[in-house]
Amino acid sequence: MATPHPANAVLIGKKEINNYVLAVIRLFSEGAEEVIIRARGKNICKAVDTAERVRHMYMKNLVVKDVKIGSEEIVDESGRKRTVSTIEIILAKPSEEESG
Amino acid sequence: MATPHPANAVLIGKKEINNYVLAVIRLFSEGAEEVIIRARGKNICKAVDTAERVRHMYMKNLVVKDVKIGSEEIVDESGRKRTVSTIEIILAKPSEEESG
Repeated sequence: MATPHPANAVLIGKKEINNYVLAVIRLFSEGAEEVIIRARGKNICKAVDTAERVRHMYMKNLVVKDVKIGSEEIVDESGRKRTVSTIEIILAKPSEEESG
Repeated sequence: MATPHPANAVLIGKKEINNYVLAVIRLFSEGAEEVIIRARGKNICKAVDTAERVRHMYMKNLVVKDVKIGSEEIVDESGRKRTVSTIEIILAKPSEEESG
């Protein structure tokens, strides 16, 4: 909740991975030039799986524009502060120059 | 086993995370200018945690030089081919220009 959630971002949560794969495909089909896949903690693996699945199975022309890792402080259920790792993967449609 | 394992790489496996944190610190202390942290599948989160823990708790001057994601085909215990996601995080000592 702390970070702004832009319209072209998909936040990875507890759902089955194909929900996120479809969310990414939908954003591109609606005209997005790039889509940001975000995750924290244990969901980081699922973020990478989502990006790779979209790229290898459904939209083979996409490129990984950038991958950023970081840390965030969260308050867990028991009220304790905890630092969790974060990831942000930016998938993008290829530019004219890169394709072909 | 398929990919070469350079001397300055740490492959994340099943051990407790601090083993990998220490492996990264040791490589830098032995003179490495950069260290590659690699992981596959469920260990990807642990790779990000390792990089973030080193960077925030032990060697605060390090920079994340690059993060690459990809896929690899592996043969699992039951002999079936399976595609797993991979990550490669490159941590580096800051260049002269960047520090200061």
